[in-house]
Amino acid sequence: MKKLINSVDNVVSEALLGMEAAHPDRLRIDHANRVVLRKDGPVSGKVGLVSGGGSGHEPMHGGFVGMGMLDAACAGEVFTSPVPDQIMAATHAVDGGAGVLHIVKNYTGDVMNFEMAAEMAAAERGIRVEAVVVDDDVAVTDSLYTAGRRGVGTTVLLEKIVGAAAEAGRDLDALTEIATRISGQGRSMGLALTSCTVPAAGKPTFELADDEMELGIGIHGEPGRERLPMASAAQAAQMLVEPVLADLDFTGSPVICFVNGMGGTPLLEQYLMYGEIAKVLQAEGVTVARSLVGSYITSLEMAGLSLTLLKADEDMLTLWDAPVNTPGLRWGC
Amino acid sequence: MKKLINSVDNVVSEALLGMEAAHPDRLRIDHANRVVLRKDGPVSGKVGLVSGGGSGHEPMHGGFVGMGMLDAACAGEVFTSPVPDQIMAATHAVDGGAGVLHIVKNYTGDVMNFEMAAEMAAAERGIRVEAVVVDDDVAVTDSLYTAGRRGVGTTVLLEKIVGAAAEAGRDLDALTEIATRISGQGRSMGLALTSCTVPAAGKPTFELADDEMELGIGIHGEPGRERLPMASAAQAAQMLVEPVLADLDFTGSPVICFVNGMGGTPLLEQYLMYGEIAKVLQAEGVTVARSLVGSYITSLEMAGLSLTLLKADEDMLTLWDAPVNTPGLRWGC
Repeated sequence: MKKLINSVDNVVSEALLGMEAAHPDRLRIDHANRVVLRKDGPVSGKVGLVSGGGSGHEPMHGGFVGMGMLDAACAGEVFTSPVPDQIMAATHAVDGGAGVLHIVKNYTGDVMNFEMAAEMAAAERGIRVEAVVVDDDVAVTDSLYTAGRRGVGTTVLLEKIVGAAAEAGRDLDALTEIATRISGQGRSMGLALTSCTVPAAGKPTFELADDEMELGIGIHGEPGRERLPMASAAQAAQMLVEPVLADLDFTGSPVICFVNGMGGTPLLEQYLMYGEIAKVLQAEGVTVARSLVGSYITSLEMAGLSLTLLKADEDMLTLWDAPVNTPGLRWGC
Repeated sequence: MKKLINSVDNVVSEALLGMEAAHPDRLRIDHANRVVLRKDGPVSGKVGLVSGGGSGHEPMHGGFVGMGMLDAACAGEVFTSPVPDQIMAATHAVDGGAGVLHIVKNYTGDVMNFEMAAEMAAAERGIRVEAVVVDDDVAVTDSLYTAGRRGVGTTVLLEKIVGAAAEAGRDLDALTEIATRISGQGRSMGLALTSCTVPAAGKPTFELADDEMELGIGIHGEPGRERLPMASAAQAAQMLVEPVLADLDFTGSPVICFVNGMGGTPLLEQYLMYGEIAKVLQAEGVTVARSLVGSYITSLEMAGLSLTLLKADEDMLTLWDAPVNTPGLRWGC
């Protein structure tokens, strides 16, 4: 294992020190609880948005903290859920008096710990907490880490859109409603060409032969649908689009198309794949209104790609375009 | 070799199709010449900024085309200079009547081809063309691809700052002056943990043992200063900072600190390294005024990192903060 780290035990805490050093104008970090916070928070009268999960998926979630997106992100160990105390600390820290929304990816540990933290925050401080659980991965139902579908790329789009809605002053009920709707209208599918290596494990999570790829991979290297011979970009695009369209009708409404690199796949290939995916979508009658290409929800250095489609409405598109100022997504400010 | 491509011959042209499909609002592409152009260009009365180089370093340069940065980028084959005809086409396309500035990284082929294109554009259309050659890599003098020092990370900072100055209406002489000054005040140093694989070659450019790293690597996998046993992040930070500070005095002026992933190094490690580098800089009395962390000038999927420091003045910082709207860097608009 070759990684630019000091010790496998301190990867997350030292990366948070680096984030703080790099973004002193935008972020502050509660190091004791490993919570990344918006520098100017809590914003009085605004609903606080809290997300989090295992580390190793950067920029998600810490990189999405800031004006127009999250108020706090809880960083678990690599590929490990944050604990309830972290989430409770984050919930307290972002409470601006208008309640708190938890944005949770559907992994058993995450769901359980966010729920527990919500109960504690309500009991201790009387904070009203709602939650949305994202479960958009069409690859598999139930997996190593999940009952039901896994939560993946839709989370990024949801955090941007709901973040803008919170910034615009919508209340907790309205935010819970739009978040739930987004979660229901987003679908994802991924594939991997290589494994990644979790620092504490010291060796690749799985092995793939030089001529193999894995379709339907999870963001922790969880097994997917099947191992296949390495495909061309055109074939791979088809394999990603088809199960997504088979699961939900994406015609008749504008769509946000998000092509995501898993960490080790160069942007050159991501763009090439975007082109192939766009061709398939056009042939299927899907209208792409906005797009996002880049490595935003990653699995350390895993080579691979995921596709997320979100069925949007005009309100969601307006919120997508609204200003955002985070280390990972930034425009309009 | 596992890559999400269709054929090694079409990687660049198909990636450009994908870029165009992903950013129809911001870019247009001259596919015959492989030139990425600003959608709203040429801007009348504005100096046109043209850069380019081998592909495989994305988002540089095509991802830096747009309002507040480049007007055009010429995409060569992977790790291969663009040809004079491409550069001439770009120069013609961005001519808004105020002259054109070529931003060139110091590789022999790039320098020669940009010079030839400048002469042709001047002769054929009477366009006044100036050039700045970036040669900021302190690792080695003369290398496989270069006479003199190689041009690396300072190029990204230069394109942002000079792009803002051009947007503000400064003339060709003023832009050439500030560009030359930035080139003289930026220094970089990189290291690699793994090689990358050029599609047409089909195998890694070089081999590194599991316990080795290469210090002073170039962005095409050119040999660096030395091969060393794998170091800790703290040691690696020292190895990057020391030669940069030994080459230029960075005290007494605000500095832009750019920690760049080479493609295959996760953001988690990049931030961890940023923290280590920030510690060394602070101990050395260097004042970081702005920072950039991410994979902006890459070597396909190479794992590694580079550090760039730019000695800035208040004017440069103001230009750094100015709005930019490109696929790769975007804020304020």
